[in-house]
Amino acid sequence: MTDVQPWRAQSAPPEVSARPKTGIVMLNLGGPATLDDVQPFLLELFADREIIQLPFQRWLGPFIARRRTPKVRQLYANIGGGSPILRYTEAQGQGMVARLDRISPETAPHKFYVAFRYTRPTSDDALRAMQHDGVERAIAFTQYPQFSCSTTGSSLNELWRAANRTGLRDAFQWSLVDRWPVHPGFIAAMTETVREGLSRFAPSVRDRVTILFSAHSLPLDVIDRGDSYPQEVGASVQRVVECLSAANPFILAYQSDVGPVRWLGPSTEQVIRRLGGRGQRELLVVPIAFTSDHIETLSELDREYGEVAHEVGITQYVRAPALNARPRFLDALAEIVKDHLRAGVAYSTQYTTRCAGCTNPQCRNILNPVGSPAMPPGRRG
Amino acid sequence: MTDVQPWRAQSAPPEVSARPKTGIVMLNLGGPATLDDVQPFLLELFADREIIQLPFQRWLGPFIARRRTPKVRQLYANIGGGSPILRYTEAQGQGMVARLDRISPETAPHKFYVAFRYTRPTSDDALRAMQHDGVERAIAFTQYPQFSCSTTGSSLNELWRAANRTGLRDAFQWSLVDRWPVHPGFIAAMTETVREGLSRFAPSVRDRVTILFSAHSLPLDVIDRGDSYPQEVGASVQRVVECLSAANPFILAYQSDVGPVRWLGPSTEQVIRRLGGRGQRELLVVPIAFTSDHIETLSELDREYGEVAHEVGITQYVRAPALNARPRFLDALAEIVKDHLRAGVAYSTQYTTRCAGCTNPQCRNILNPVGSPAMPPGRRG
Repeated sequence: MTDVQPWRAQSAPPEVSARPKTGIVMLNLGGPATLDDVQPFLLELFADREIIQLPFQRWLGPFIARRRTPKVRQLYANIGGGSPILRYTEAQGQGMVARLDRISPETAPHKFYVAFRYTRPTSDDALRAMQHDGVERAIAFTQYPQFSCSTTGSSLNELWRAANRTGLRDAFQWSLVDRWPVHPGFIAAMTETVREGLSRFAPSVRDRVTILFSAHSLPLDVIDRGDSYPQEVGASVQRVVECLSAANPFILAYQSDVGPVRWLGPSTEQVIRRLGGRGQRELLVVPIAFTSDHIETLSELDREYGEVAHEVGITQYVRAPALNARPRFLDALAEIVKDHLRAGVAYSTQYTTRCAGCTNPQCRNILNPVGSPAMPPGRRG
Repeated sequence: MTDVQPWRAQSAPPEVSARPKTGIVMLNLGGPATLDDVQPFLLELFADREIIQLPFQRWLGPFIARRRTPKVRQLYANIGGGSPILRYTEAQGQGMVARLDRISPETAPHKFYVAFRYTRPTSDDALRAMQHDGVERAIAFTQYPQFSCSTTGSSLNELWRAANRTGLRDAFQWSLVDRWPVHPGFIAAMTETVREGLSRFAPSVRDRVTILFSAHSLPLDVIDRGDSYPQEVGASVQRVVECLSAANPFILAYQSDVGPVRWLGPSTEQVIRRLGGRGQRELLVVPIAFTSDHIETLSELDREYGEVAHEVGITQYVRAPALNARPRFLDALAEIVKDHLRAGVAYSTQYTTRCAGCTNPQCRNILNPVGSPAMPPGRRG
C-alpha cells in the first residue's frame, strides 16, 4: 500500500524529449517515506514557525520532535512503514500533465515537480530539476484545496526562500494556483468519493447515514489572525452536499488538534463520541481538506477514530476514499491548471490579502509574476 | 428612520377578506421599539438559556439585564429611539405575501405573522392572530439566513412552547424554512447591497476596497457543540463573492462578542484596527447574517466601528445597506417560500440533526408536520 523507497533525485523521464513549456510545482506537506525518515520529518515540522510558534523554538522544536518520534514511527509502522503521499502525488502529477498536454496544447509540454514542505523532494529539489529541464514558465500549484497560511502559505514562503537559496530567484516566471475550494472538478471528484462511501452501506440504512466532513484543525490564534481556511472549508462542504443531492444529514468537524492551546472545533473525535453516545449507528467520515491518503486518514481517521466509533456503539463506520489517483480527480487537477492558464492571472484575488493579524513580512509574496515586470519579492496588493 | 410606536395587537387588515390559506410566521430576535422597551427586551434576552447559559441565571440574568439597560438605552437613543426591526419585518412580510399571491396562487391567500423572540409581537401573539384568522397551514420562516441553535433554534423552541402555552398545539399543520444560506434569491439580493456599497467609492479606488463580511459571533462553546452556523456563513460569503465577480479582496469576521468567554474570531473590530494599522484606506463592511437594520448595524457597525476605522486611518469606511425592504430581497423571500411549498417537505435535511454536543431535549422539534400524521413533539430523525 505504501511506498517504502526513500526519494531519490530523478532524471527527466525519457518520454519528455522536448523542453517543458510549463512546469507545475505541486506543493504539499509530504510525509516520511520510511520509518527512518520520521525523525527528520518531525524536526522540519517543528522548526516551521509558519505552522507552530514555540517559545525557544530552536531548542524546544527539536526536543518535541525527538520526543514524539517513537510514537509517530509506530503510527507509520502500522500503516505499512511510511507515507504513501509521494506515490500518490506522482500519480496525480502524471495524470494531470498527460491530460493537460491534450486539453491545453498551446502550453504543452507540461511537466510536474513535487515540492514537499517537510521531506524530500523539497522546494530546492523541485527548483533544481526545473532548471535542469530548462523550464521558464512555472506554476506553483498548492495541493491543499482550501488556503491556510499554515499550509499553502508556509509552502509558498519556503518556495521563495528556496529560490533565493539556490540562486534561482530570476530563473522562472511564476504564477500561483493558491486555492480551489469550490472548483467544479474538485467538487465533482469529492462528491464521487462520498457516493462511494455511501454505497458501502445497505440500501435500507443508506439514507440515515450521517456524513461527517473532517478537516485538519488550526489553533484558534491562527483563526483569530484572520486565516480564510474555515470560510473556504465551509464553502467546500456546502458545494459537495449540493452536488451530492442526497437526504443525509451532515456535520463539519475538525481533527488532529494537539497540545495545550485551544483549536477550532467541533472536534471530529468528540463528534464521533457524542453521535455514538446518542444512538447513531451509521457514520461516513469524509476527509474534505486532504487530497491524498496520509497519516491523518490511514491512521487517525481509519484506526484511531475507528476504534473510538466502535467503543461508542457505531456499528458501521466508513471513511470515504481519499481522492488519490482517481481519474475524476486527475481530470480536476488538469482543469484547475487549464482554467488558471486561460485566466492569465498571477494569483487569486485573495492571495495578496494578508491575514488582518499577520506579522510575518514574508507572507503573500511572489517572484517574477507573469503578466507584469519582474518585481522584488516585497509585499503586494 | 425608526418606528417609535410600541407594538399593538392588530386586527386583520381589511384587504384580506378570505381566510388565509397559508400563514407564514416570520421568526427573528426583535428589538425594543421604544426606549422603555429596552429593559424588558434585555430581561428576555438574558433569560434565554438557548442563547446564554449563566450560573444562577434566574438571579444573574435580570441583574446583568438591569445593569446593562442604561448603556443600551443610550445606544437606542443614538439610533433614533428604538429598533426599526418591526417596521422592516412588516414591510418584508407585506412584500413577500403580495408576491406569493401572484407566483403561488394555489397556496393563496398568504398572510404573514411576526414572532419575535425577545419583544412583542411574540410567538404567542402570532399564534393567537393565526387562530383568529382561521389559518390551518403554517410555515415557520426563520429570518436568519444561516442556522444557529442560538437564533433560529431558540425561536423555534419558543414557538413550540408558545403553542403549548396558548392551547394551540393542535391548531396548525406546520412546516419549517429553517435556513437559506445559499438560496439564489438571497445571494442575488445580498450581492446587490455589496454592489451598492462599492458604488460609493470613487472608480479610481473601487477595485482596491477590501470587503469585510461581518456576521454575529458565537461563544466557542456553541461552536464546539457542533453548531452549523460558521459553515453556513462561510458558504454564504463564497456564493456572494462568486455572484459579485469582482476583483476585491474579502475577509470574513465576527462581531458583537461580549463577556469573559472566548468567541469565534476573527473579531470584526480587531480586523478593522489591523487593516487600518497596516495602511488600508478603503473598507466596505457587509452584514452577511442580518436581514434588517438593527442595533448591530446602525450602532455597532456604523457608529462604534466607524469610529474605530476613523481612529486607525481608514479614510473611507462604508457599510453596505441592509437588505431591509429592497425589492430584490422581497422577491427572494417569496421565492424561498414558494420553493419550500413546491418541495413539499416539513423541514430541511439538516433540521433534525441536533448538534453533536446538544443536551437540550427541546431542540429540533416540530408540531404536526405536514406530510405526516400529527406526532408528539418528541425528537425526530
